[in-house]
Amino acid sequence: MEAIQLPQKKPSNRQELSIIDCDVHNTMATDKVLYPYLSTRWRRHHEMLETPDRVGGYIARGMPYGARHDAWPPSGQRPGSELNFLREQLLDFWDIEYGILNCLTAVPDMPNLEYAAAFAQAVNDWQISEWLEPEPRLRASMIVPVEDADLTVREINRLAEHPGFVQVMVLARTDEPLGRRKYWDMYEAAVRYDLPIGIHFTGVGAGPVTAVGKPSHYIEDHAGMTQAFQTQVTSLVCEGVFEHFPTLKVVLIEGGFGWLPPLMWRLDCAWKKLHDEVPYVKRLPSEYIHGHFWITSQPLEEPPKQEYLQQLLESLNSEEKVMFATDYPHWDFDSPEHAIPKSLGLDLRRRIMAENARAFYRL
Amino acid sequence: MEAIQLPQKKPSNRQELSIIDCDVHNTMATDKVLYPYLSTRWRRHHEMLETPDRVGGYIARGMPYGARHDAWPPSGQRPGSELNFLREQLLDFWDIEYGILNCLTAVPDMPNLEYAAAFAQAVNDWQISEWLEPEPRLRASMIVPVEDADLTVREINRLAEHPGFVQVMVLARTDEPLGRRKYWDMYEAAVRYDLPIGIHFTGVGAGPVTAVGKPSHYIEDHAGMTQAFQTQVTSLVCEGVFEHFPTLKVVLIEGGFGWLPPLMWRLDCAWKKLHDEVPYVKRLPSEYIHGHFWITSQPLEEPPKQEYLQQLLESLNSEEKVMFATDYPHWDFDSPEHAIPKSLGLDLRRRIMAENARAFYRL
Repeated sequence: MEAIQLPQKKPSNRQELSIIDCDVHNTMATDKVLYPYLSTRWRRHHEMLETPDRVGGYIARGMPYGARHDAWPPSGQRPGSELNFLREQLLDFWDIEYGILNCLTAVPDMPNLEYAAAFAQAVNDWQISEWLEPEPRLRASMIVPVEDADLTVREINRLAEHPGFVQVMVLARTDEPLGRRKYWDMYEAAVRYDLPIGIHFTGVGAGPVTAVGKPSHYIEDHAGMTQAFQTQVTSLVCEGVFEHFPTLKVVLIEGGFGWLPPLMWRLDCAWKKLHDEVPYVKRLPSEYIHGHFWITSQPLEEPPKQEYLQQLLESLNSEEKVMFATDYPHWDFDSPEHAIPKSLGLDLRRRIMAENARAFYRL
Repeated sequence: MEAIQLPQKKPSNRQELSIIDCDVHNTMATDKVLYPYLSTRWRRHHEMLETPDRVGGYIARGMPYGARHDAWPPSGQRPGSELNFLREQLLDFWDIEYGILNCLTAVPDMPNLEYAAAFAQAVNDWQISEWLEPEPRLRASMIVPVEDADLTVREINRLAEHPGFVQVMVLARTDEPLGRRKYWDMYEAAVRYDLPIGIHFTGVGAGPVTAVGKPSHYIEDHAGMTQAFQTQVTSLVCEGVFEHFPTLKVVLIEGGFGWLPPLMWRLDCAWKKLHDEVPYVKRLPSEYIHGHFWITSQPLEEPPKQEYLQQLLESLNSEEKVMFATDYPHWDFDSPEHAIPKSLGLDLRRRIMAENARAFYRL
């Protein structure tokens, strides 16, 4: 390689002090200016990034806003942002009797807790005016600034009597495991109004998203989200939360459920030998889990044999506890027609598709 | 309450400057001086701590060194520290043909990597002289300073030809997920000598031990260790490690295995939709898992129905991949007589109890 010469700088005309600026910022007009410099393979990867222009947006999903490609309204607004289009594409198209809105926002992850509370209140009021009041088929999860108990209780107190809100929603990745005392005031408020806590897929949390650091890919993040759910179930049981709040109900939303029976076996087995450490856990962990947890169906587990699914549902008392969900408008949408296999039988399908949720949310 | 008076200090005789010392350290002679001030319940908890005098020793296990109460040799030395007693209590008593030593040390967690390498080398040489040479029924895992690839490769090169070492051992909680490139030189060295990688329960890692922060109890840590294993399996598959090292074999030791089939279902399902992100993952994740992972049996899963265990073993190709282990001398020891249920049939039991390991480790 020949020696590379940088262009010569123009000689200075300055008579006095020379200047060297040690902090000058250049930037790309758009990330596309880099395309000529990227190989096809990594350009393809780059195009899959959800928010290449944001710090933290390095996870490839291949679909902006995690949405089905057909879920963009004709207006070009974000998927899930227009009631009319949601009515048409989801409620009317599939003839859905009720839909529970789980509006995903950055509220639970906001480090400024006062702002998180203000934002949560705004989201909830917007949901009342623009979703719950115009559309009787919709109910909503209440958004709360979960990392501060006082502000969370204030929001629950403000809205709990509103008939449109059927649960309090938190994200699966919290700053601490949900059994810890910082969250207990939230549970006290929730049980006072008989509102379940819904734990929904995603969240940022305070640390890496796995037990051994940061994975490189979205597929690992996605498949690994069950770890957050496992921690939350374990923590709620082992901290004795259900002894303190015996009427507390928890819904695991979009976390899958194949991992839950093995976790119960393992916790039961450990509790038999270690319960001295947690004397407030008076019964087998699986008894609390069977008593206090409900589960949404999407993404439905897809074991290689149909009998595994059947057995799994049996282990989880699905005739009462499993409730159908589509995850509309996201890419891993479960279709109401195909998701729950016909082989499970009409009675169980009827319960999973509607009756369990009707009883649970009192619809 | 009456006003509390502190004892009066003696008037100063000093003529010049007064002295206030703003950093004076008091300490407890032993932690037992606190017993009169602790309630019975928390004194009981305190007594369960493994190392109450160590920072980080706040986890209650109820048994020093995590050992069975009867595993202390008559000399009073640590459980598992005397070859003669181990012969008597394990190898002879149960008539065990071969035992694989997995010596647990702080090596993988030592931040001083040169010291970690020196310590690993010392442990390995001590194992050769005091365990492998005197006892032909024993084989050992090689200890390596896993967080530095060069030092790890150096130790593998030094010892790989020794017939006593049958695998390279790392702990389940590493600083980064094991699929990441910092560990690839270790895999290259391991496959060069056809040594499997054993991933063993425990480890400290770089972050909290769950995906959502620190749990409060040992029971949560213990039941939650499967999360570290889940991350490692996911990472090794999704980073394409088995495409780069097609002969690499990995053993999951003491991590349980009930969580593995649901993880395979979830990864397969995600891969079908997201494989563009990981083009180096050319086959279904479950195919790599079936091809590259072996599993030790202890702690054997204890589902409520025998048929669940049967199905689980079937999902994991147990006739080739599951290998018996006791975890001697630890508290959750699995007995060779009772651990593997007779109902699994003589042929499968024979394979799990010895033949799978004989073939795998070439014994």
